Amino acid sequence: MMGGDLGVPANVSGVRRYVLDGGCPDVSFDLFGNIAPIESAIAKFSDFPTSCCEIHNTGERMISSEERPSVAIKKSGGTSMFEAISHVGLNRADAVVSSGNTGAFMALSKIIIGMISNINRPALISIIPNSKGRSVMLDLGANTECSSLQLTQFAAMGAAVAKVLLDITDPSIALLNIGTERSKGTEILDAAYKILEENVNLNFIGFIEGTDITKGTSDVIVTDGFSGNISLKTMEGTIRYLLHLAKEEVGKSLLCKIGCLFCRRMLISIKNSIDPRRHNGAPLVGLKKIAVKSHGGSDSIGVANAISTAVTLAKSNFITNINDTLTSLETGKGTV
Amino acid sequence: MMGGDLGVPANVSGVRRYVLDGGCPDVSFDLFGNIAPIESAIAKFSDFPTSCCEIHNTGERMISSEERPSVAIKKSGGTSMFEAISHVGLNRADAVVSSGNTGAFMALSKIIIGMISNINRPALISIIPNSKGRSVMLDLGANTECSSLQLTQFAAMGAAVAKVLLDITDPSIALLNIGTERSKGTEILDAAYKILEENVNLNFIGFIEGTDITKGTSDVIVTDGFSGNISLKTMEGTIRYLLHLAKEEVGKSLLCKIGCLFCRRMLISIKNSIDPRRHNGAPLVGLKKIAVKSHGGSDSIGVANAISTAVTLAKSNFITNINDTLTSLETGKGTV
Repeated sequence: MMGGDLGVPANVSGVRRYVLDGGCPDVSFDLFGNIAPIESAIAKFSDFPTSCCEIHNTGERMISSEERPSVAIKKSGGTSMFEAISHVGLNRADAVVSSGNTGAFMALSKIIIGMISNINRPALISIIPNSKGRSVMLDLGANTECSSLQLTQFAAMGAAVAKVLLDITDPSIALLNIGTERSKGTEILDAAYKILEENVNLNFIGFIEGTDITKGTSDVIVTDGFSGNISLKTMEGTIRYLLHLAKEEVGKSLLCKIGCLFCRRMLISIKNSIDPRRHNGAPLVGLKKIAVKSHGGSDSIGVANAISTAVTLAKSNFITNINDTLTSLETGKGTV
Repeated sequence: MMGGDLGVPANVSGVRRYVLDGGCPDVSFDLFGNIAPIESAIAKFSDFPTSCCEIHNTGERMISSEERPSVAIKKSGGTSMFEAISHVGLNRADAVVSSGNTGAFMALSKIIIGMISNINRPALISIIPNSKGRSVMLDLGANTECSSLQLTQFAAMGAAVAKVLLDITDPSIALLNIGTERSKGTEILDAAYKILEENVNLNFIGFIEGTDITKGTSDVIVTDGFSGNISLKTMEGTIRYLLHLAKEEVGKSLLCKIGCLFCRRMLISIKNSIDPRRHNGAPLVGLKKIAVKSHGGSDSIGVANAISTAVTLAKSNFITNINDTLTSLETGKGTV
């Protein structure tokens, strides 16, 4: 409850929004944080769903978003983030959601929850809207440098997420590169291509380039955490830039302002479909349990969406599915 | 004249458009390619500026866009691209422009024109529109893996381009990273940061992230060719996706179509400011002469803009400027 730029109020309203907007009725919440601000944020709502929430008071101990993960971990004992992740590690909850310090959340989840066998580090995965629907993309910053083996594991994990979250039976998988030609790119990508193309269980379609991400050329977009992070943030920045440009131009003309009134519904519909809050909730894949990273700047809409992602994953056979696809990747024979 | 998906007709109309749209009156053109299609494309215009153009017939010998650069180079003798670059190499022209095979254009330019001392490979640089104006970004795909030294050379070359093309006196320079914190990123970025921060002649402002590109946080954006290519193409893809989304939504409603009529001028203005054709022409920096890569899909507007970029560079003291900034980078004392 302490994580994110907007802190307790956004997290409290996020829980409320999730429940009141028709979230699964059998979901209950363990809220970790400083009880005083949590209770005062709850008190602002007459309709807060208190019956499905239990507060675990961790006092003022918390990990700040500015702290270096390596430093944060050392003194993490008793913090709201540590206790929330431990609750999942101890099987007392099915999933953990946090808008807090990304590096610390990843490192603590890895230590406390543990990794699926043969996976070294978790990857951050996100849902990206495109012209045909939606796709999943990973890694988005957890691993700045990746081996070819890691990329192939990302492919398998991405396919599992696409099945569960996007309901795609046999997700197509592509490696993000600087061109679609087989000869393009780095040696690491070349090696990953070879492994993936030989695997009969993965629907690998080859290389795609940056312009293909929003075209929806593949259901799963695999890349290293450096390029993935830059690509996703470039996308966010470009959307903001275009909205800024449109606002500036509209401001110059009364005629145009009137025109926009006619287009109100369209503008709202576009704004919603590209609203990052509505795509919020990046699962940390590779862990033995479900952990969902919510954007640091999340408001109640963002938090509610991250909760919804966590619930969907928890209600599916997500971890089993990932394990199966990873096994099939090794054997090249299993049923994916 | 043979390069690009649209071939001779687009290149011929591009030259015509550049001249008739008020290009510099003292510019003359050496057109390399197959004389028959060039003359037939010229014949379609009654106002083609034949007086400032000389055709150099290279027959049917050309480098196709699909060919691997390594293969293309071996049999490049006598092709339109080889002859055009050689013309510049022999000081018979000040700049070469091509929409052809990027890899071959780079490799041949490097061999025929040669590199500035201490620069190993050319970098592709492009102008990016942003909320505050424009910035330059490099490398965009010429060097998939870069050393920290290369990145610092990109910084110096980018600053020189920003001075000449964007008319900025002391361009701010940033390294593209997955976060703005000093601790973020790879060892290569860390080493490049150290070199740049110690150089008093470069206005280095630190790390920026993907969202900052279109914010206009820095005048020069430095990155390796892999991330740069993916970032630029993600931007192109996102713009196309939003236009697609808008078109689809407008198509659903008559009211909205009417609204768009009111906004016609605004829509045209936005479309123009993000039109990649109007930002076409990526200089290959690091060469001893001026070579400008035009997008493979360029039409006459794109080609005209690439020509315009080449002319601006040729009329400035661009190569001297790059040499000076590179020298200052080494000494940390020169006048940048």
